[in-house]
Amino acid sequence: MDADALSTFERRDWETTTDFEPVRFAMVGLGWWTRDEAIPATEDSDVCETTVVVSSDRGKSEEVVEETTAETALTYDEFHDGEATDEYDAVYVATPNAAHLEYVESAAEFDKAVLCEKPMESSVERARRMVEACEDADVSLMVAYRMQTEPAVRRARELVADGAIGDPVLVHGSMSQRLLEMIPDPDQWRLDPNLAGPGASVTDLGIYPLNTARFVLDADPAAVSAFARSEDEAFSDVPDEVATFEVRFDDGTLAACSASQNAHETGHFKVVGTEGQISIEPVFAGQAHRGFALELGENRAEVDYEEQNQMREEFDYFAHQLRTDGEIHPDGRHGLVDMEALEAIYESAAEGSVVKL
Amino acid sequence: MDADALSTFERRDWETTTDFEPVRFAMVGLGWWTRDEAIPATEDSDVCETTVVVSSDRGKSEEVVEETTAETALTYDEFHDGEATDEYDAVYVATPNAAHLEYVESAAEFDKAVLCEKPMESSVERARRMVEACEDADVSLMVAYRMQTEPAVRRARELVADGAIGDPVLVHGSMSQRLLEMIPDPDQWRLDPNLAGPGASVTDLGIYPLNTARFVLDADPAAVSAFARSEDEAFSDVPDEVATFEVRFDDGTLAACSASQNAHETGHFKVVGTEGQISIEPVFAGQAHRGFALELGENRAEVDYEEQNQMREEFDYFAHQLRTDGEIHPDGRHGLVDMEALEAIYESAAEGSVVKL
Repeated sequence: MDADALSTFERRDWETTTDFEPVRFAMVGLGWWTRDEAIPATEDSDVCETTVVVSSDRGKSEEVVEETTAETALTYDEFHDGEATDEYDAVYVATPNAAHLEYVESAAEFDKAVLCEKPMESSVERARRMVEACEDADVSLMVAYRMQTEPAVRRARELVADGAIGDPVLVHGSMSQRLLEMIPDPDQWRLDPNLAGPGASVTDLGIYPLNTARFVLDADPAAVSAFARSEDEAFSDVPDEVATFEVRFDDGTLAACSASQNAHETGHFKVVGTEGQISIEPVFAGQAHRGFALELGENRAEVDYEEQNQMREEFDYFAHQLRTDGEIHPDGRHGLVDMEALEAIYESAAEGSVVKL
Repeated sequence: MDADALSTFERRDWETTTDFEPVRFAMVGLGWWTRDEAIPATEDSDVCETTVVVSSDRGKSEEVVEETTAETALTYDEFHDGEATDEYDAVYVATPNAAHLEYVESAAEFDKAVLCEKPMESSVERARRMVEACEDADVSLMVAYRMQTEPAVRRARELVADGAIGDPVLVHGSMSQRLLEMIPDPDQWRLDPNLAGPGASVTDLGIYPLNTARFVLDADPAAVSAFARSEDEAFSDVPDEVATFEVRFDDGTLAACSASQNAHETGHFKVVGTEGQISIEPVFAGQAHRGFALELGENRAEVDYEEQNQMREEFDYFAHQLRTDGEIHPDGRHGLVDMEALEAIYESAAEGSVVKL
């Protein structure tokens, strides 16, 4: 085994320069993710900054202005009215899923690039409208799949493409967490189908192994099958307190995946090939330690590496591509494929049959 | 976390005495598994011994008599004719799957206890006949699920039953190997549906995560869904060079599993609960090192323990239960449930729909 295969992480294989004007962001939606993860990531960054924050809650947005580099607090209406558009270059959208579209449409109208959280929207139809709005206005749209700029995941993708594990055969992926311990509110939007879309666990968590498998395999789903179950009272409006799903990819690889918003926080991601396997565990949630292991035949090499701030990697990539006119990889058309797969997964769970894509 | 939860393996919680006459075995079928694993396990054991070996190949059986404690070599016809029945107390059956029934029927006729390899037979119907033959003759029938006497698996079952990880939510299981590297013969019986049954990977390997999940959860499959694929020429007669399958258990737990006879040798088994998870990896194939990890909330404890000879554990358990008139746990009725689940998995893969049990 070539030790270099594991030890030489090219942390930013996409980076050609850092010599450009920072990208100024309007942060739309000030939930815990934006406040605890996204804004700090831009504060950490040399090429991104948060200048505008947008929330329905004036108290919350003014508090964020006090605490961060942001200088302007807008209400949603003020944002839609085009206030302060000279103070930001791009928009990060992290509202409830079903509200993404309207903010992206306004951003497109103001000629602002968009970084939109996943899942893109609450339905395929609304996600498609988002893509079309950005294409019509010729603004860049990136879907915030932070795994695609995670160095270990990018390295895994390279290794698979180079044939390091032979031909890919199987993918195993899972993500689970205790949503109600993280956000102790049974009325939160992630449990409301009107705001979240068709479910709670696959849309929000299952999308990680699904999209990471697509990225690492460079393949798209051809068919899915799924089981879902909700038992806890708090999950009574969504079908998937817990779910398993299988994916048949268009390259023939099969995946066995799962997701739960009401189970111990854990996750794994493993690609098994004819000659070896690559696993990253824990993978999708933030953890201090991260292990990356490559097996080839009877040999095994493990690398524990220091975790990068995944949101900073993502923001910096987005800024770099905008400023260098580079192609943006997880774009809206890419995200649409996941939206279609998610709808198929819920359809399969409801109907008890395989759904082809 | 209670460190004792992990460190105090009761290796043999079933053992009450070793003070009994050893059980003498006739080994039926002298493939590599019997010669390299089963006979050496009995040689290692204080309570089991191999006295008779049965094979169609007289040269092979006489070679085994030369090399081992076995004293008598029988052909299959001689075995069926009841030769040397005073030289053995029990029969271990490890022929191709579709031949199990006839040897078990003869063993039952001779009033010999039976330890039969998994999968029990090539079809539910033949497995049912096996169960009935043993019940009619009132002889003990154990199906050789070596995970059920593996100390770590038994400990995992205890921990789950004690609520150590809260309520079980998800199971992840996988087993894969390179069959054609282990046995470089494309005409081997495991790839011949007439001898192996409906497939090659789920029947032979997928049965490990399936049965281990049943054992650890103390639950049975209620519905399954599966994808299967064969591409390599050597697998053209079977549907499942690789397969994924989901299981909905009757306690509500969902499982995401996979199996392949043509992928890197690896495997995992993980039970995720509301409060924690237990994982054993590697698990199903023999490995020098074995890791057992328990996570509870943010705490994690790992135990690396010396692997036990799983076949010796299994043989010794079987002998102990026979000599002490104890109940045998993985009995024929238990094995039948797996046979039904296996047939449902292949039906699901062929039909593209969920199959209920």
